[in-house]
Amino acid sequence: MYESVRDFYLTKGFGGRVGFGSSPALLVIDMAKAWLDESSPLGSANVQGVMTNILRLLDAARGCAIPVIFTTMAFDADGIEARGPIGKKLLHTSQGRSLDRGSSAHVLDPRLARRPEEILIEKQRASAFWGTPLSAYLIGRKIDTLIITGCSTSGCIRGTAESGHNENYHTIVVGDAVGDRHPLAHECNLIDIDMRFADVIPTDIVLKALGPQTA
Amino acid sequence: MYESVRDFYLTKGFGGRVGFGSSPALLVIDMAKAWLDESSPLGSANVQGVMTNILRLLDAARGCAIPVIFTTMAFDADGIEARGPIGKKLLHTSQGRSLDRGSSAHVLDPRLARRPEEILIEKQRASAFWGTPLSAYLIGRKIDTLIITGCSTSGCIRGTAESGHNENYHTIVVGDAVGDRHPLAHECNLIDIDMRFADVIPTDIVLKALGPQTA
Amino acid sequence: MYESVRDFYLTKGFGGRVGFGSSPALLVIDMAKAWLDESSPLGSANVQGVMTNILRLLDAARGCAIPVIFTTMAFDADGIEARGPIGKKLLHTSQGRSLDRGSSAHVLDPRLARRPEEILIEKQRASAFWGTPLSAYLIGRKIDTLIITGCSTSGCIRGTAESGHNENYHTIVVGDAVGDRHPLAHECNLIDIDMRFADVIPTDIVLKALGPQTA
Amino acid sequence: MYESVRDFYLTKGFGGRVGFGSSPALLVIDMAKAWLDESSPLGSANVQGVMTNILRLLDAARGCAIPVIFTTMAFDADGIEARGPIGKKLLHTSQGRSLDRGSSAHVLDPRLARRPEEILIEKQRASAFWGTPLSAYLIGRKIDTLIITGCSTSGCIRGTAESGHNENYHTIVVGDAVGDRHPLAHECNLIDIDMRFADVIPTDIVLKALGPQTA
Repeated sequence: MYESVRDFYLTKGFGGRVGFGSSPALLVIDMAKAWLDESSPLGSANVQGVMTNILRLLDAARGCAIPVIFTTMAFDADGIEARGPIGKKLLHTSQGRSLDRGSSAHVLDPRLARRPEEILIEKQRASAFWGTPLSAYLIGRKIDTLIITGCSTSGCIRGTAESGHNENYHTIVVGDAVGDRHPLAHECNLIDIDMRFADVIPTDIVLKALGPQTA
Repeated sequence: MYESVRDFYLTKGFGGRVGFGSSPALLVIDMAKAWLDESSPLGSANVQGVMTNILRLLDAARGCAIPVIFTTMAFDADGIEARGPIGKKLLHTSQGRSLDRGSSAHVLDPRLARRPEEILIEKQRASAFWGTPLSAYLIGRKIDTLIITGCSTSGCIRGTAESGHNENYHTIVVGDAVGDRHPLAHECNLIDIDMRFADVIPTDIVLKALGPQTA
Repeated sequence: MYESVRDFYLTKGFGGRVGFGSSPALLVIDMAKAWLDESSPLGSANVQGVMTNILRLLDAARGCAIPVIFTTMAFDADGIEARGPIGKKLLHTSQGRSLDRGSSAHVLDPRLARRPEEILIEKQRASAFWGTPLSAYLIGRKIDTLIITGCSTSGCIRGTAESGHNENYHTIVVGDAVGDRHPLAHECNLIDIDMRFADVIPTDIVLKALGPQTA
Repeated sequence: MYESVRDFYLTKGFGGRVGFGSSPALLVIDMAKAWLDESSPLGSANVQGVMTNILRLLDAARGCAIPVIFTTMAFDADGIEARGPIGKKLLHTSQGRSLDRGSSAHVLDPRLARRPEEILIEKQRASAFWGTPLSAYLIGRKIDTLIITGCSTSGCIRGTAESGHNENYHTIVVGDAVGDRHPLAHECNLIDIDMRFADVIPTDIVLKALGPQTA
């Protein structure tokens, strides 16, 4: 049903294609226990397929020396860092406790097997750019293309994609390598992202695009 | 139908209320011809009600010395400022021409009757914070609450609300004083905004909240 | 001799006074072993007086519930986070090793006796604002005045003062509670700061200004 | 005398060389009447040599398609945009009037002969990055190196160089193509910049470095 939004926005001239630049980085957003465990307040169901696709993309990226950057999210356990409206909106219930720094909940899923040369950013907002040194990590590596994976589509993925677009990166969101705790939020936000901020394309196409660089 | 997203997110502990702080500013986002004229590529239908509510809020804000800040959006006519992926996504068709600096399309609607003491920000992205001095205008006025109006809900309103949330403002989006060129995009994005970034409340309630300060 | 710069800049209309606002925070910049131990590559001599004045200011701030925020600086030990020009400028020799995350060098001096409600920010640049959530910590506490202490005057103090000025805070640098590893760099940068970014005033005057709030 | 600061900082491991990357942009900071006319409150004496060197660098950059970006500085004439501490520090006297938007004072010197494809940024702070879209202009052109010229060394040049360093650009300040209204401020700040943020090198060396690209 949200397809009608896409159709209408296309008639208005939105939804241009940015394509790939020449120097991509793979961003893996918040693939930690807090978001992967369905029983967790922040957890998403059905992200198994997302994990599988991320692992395929990680293999490809590592095979052709494409930089990989992971994020997770954390606040101090006393709520000091989230004082103010941010805490009221985000952490007003026990769900916030999933984000206590030092808890196991925000540790990356071990299947990701992060390597020492792969940066891990601890962020406090949806966008991986907000309040972090991410922009300088990208510029120092001459990155011009962001390949965004992880969760959640309607939060950290959209926020990071909007920031990437703002900063003028070729921004790619891998449609089947991002997930949301609700399928409708996933679907509608992917369309908004595709119309406004990033090309939404599936893992298979991204792997092909990375191919020549792998060869 | 997107109500199911709201219901599910509420069970997960999202959607906390931030309420009003003690020192609000009224933001009027992109109420210029490019967005108001339905025949324009960027134009939104049915924003007449939005304009009416914005005028009511402007009256109230001016009556009690609440700062008012307007935005519009513009790029140079030669496409120099939009070179790169940003231009490919946003300005790849003739719609972009609506945003030429100096065209009439991005001039504020005269009904807003902007006063000399009311700042007008020319922005180049959805968020009124990105690439502008907005943060310093707010801090210099000791603002702690943003009341966001204008268009479009799925673009500049959501982007500005997310930034306001990121910066830890009490962020309020006035549900019937914001509009989108597609009603479904409006509705779904209001729910996401309400769950994640800002309290979405109607004009009548906002006017009541401003009341004691008016008195 | 650099006094002639001050005199000339004053004739040109620089050096206005910003004074105190109504809601200050005390920033204590990089008072960790890496900067305090003279034998360390980054170390400053003669910061004993600086520490004494910071302890006096901490006492006063804690006595009147003024928020205190500490910073330190750290990079990963493998040099991944400093890849690029930043590492070439800042960390090209063994001095960089003083900033390895997890080394004792960037742990705060125990005399500061940081309390649980006092935020500690780990930063990677001179300015405490760059790449950190500091702006939101301040806005969430409705801070309008920054009282800046610590080291080094020509680096992190000046950088943080310029950012505070940019963001439109009443920015105060406590002249005898900041230090530099070279006395001339200290003196000249204090004058530039005073002309351009912040009021430079001594601890005694700051303590008096905080007085009414203490009472 | 400030040479002793350089010598001491070098022994501490500061002052690494960043060199040129592969894709430079030329920044020309605030070469407008307000800063060039000695009789103006903001004006600098003896910037004739600076202008000459900037013109040489402009010729070279235009000859080899290196992007050129100009800045100027402006505020509204009513002081609305500078309300708060920023205005108290920067614009408290009649000097501020030199920065009125629409006055001739902030128009670029005509000798620069700006071309349509060369961006002009209107900024409100020392750093050309603060409150402007500069970061996206650079990323959209895949720039990795900033060649900074203009004035004033102790203000906008240092501020822009620090931001360029923060963002991880190869940051070059052209020592004889930047100027300050006081020679001592110029000299001391160049040393601080060279130790901390950017390589300070003369026009002749920069022209040689650009040479291979010109050929």
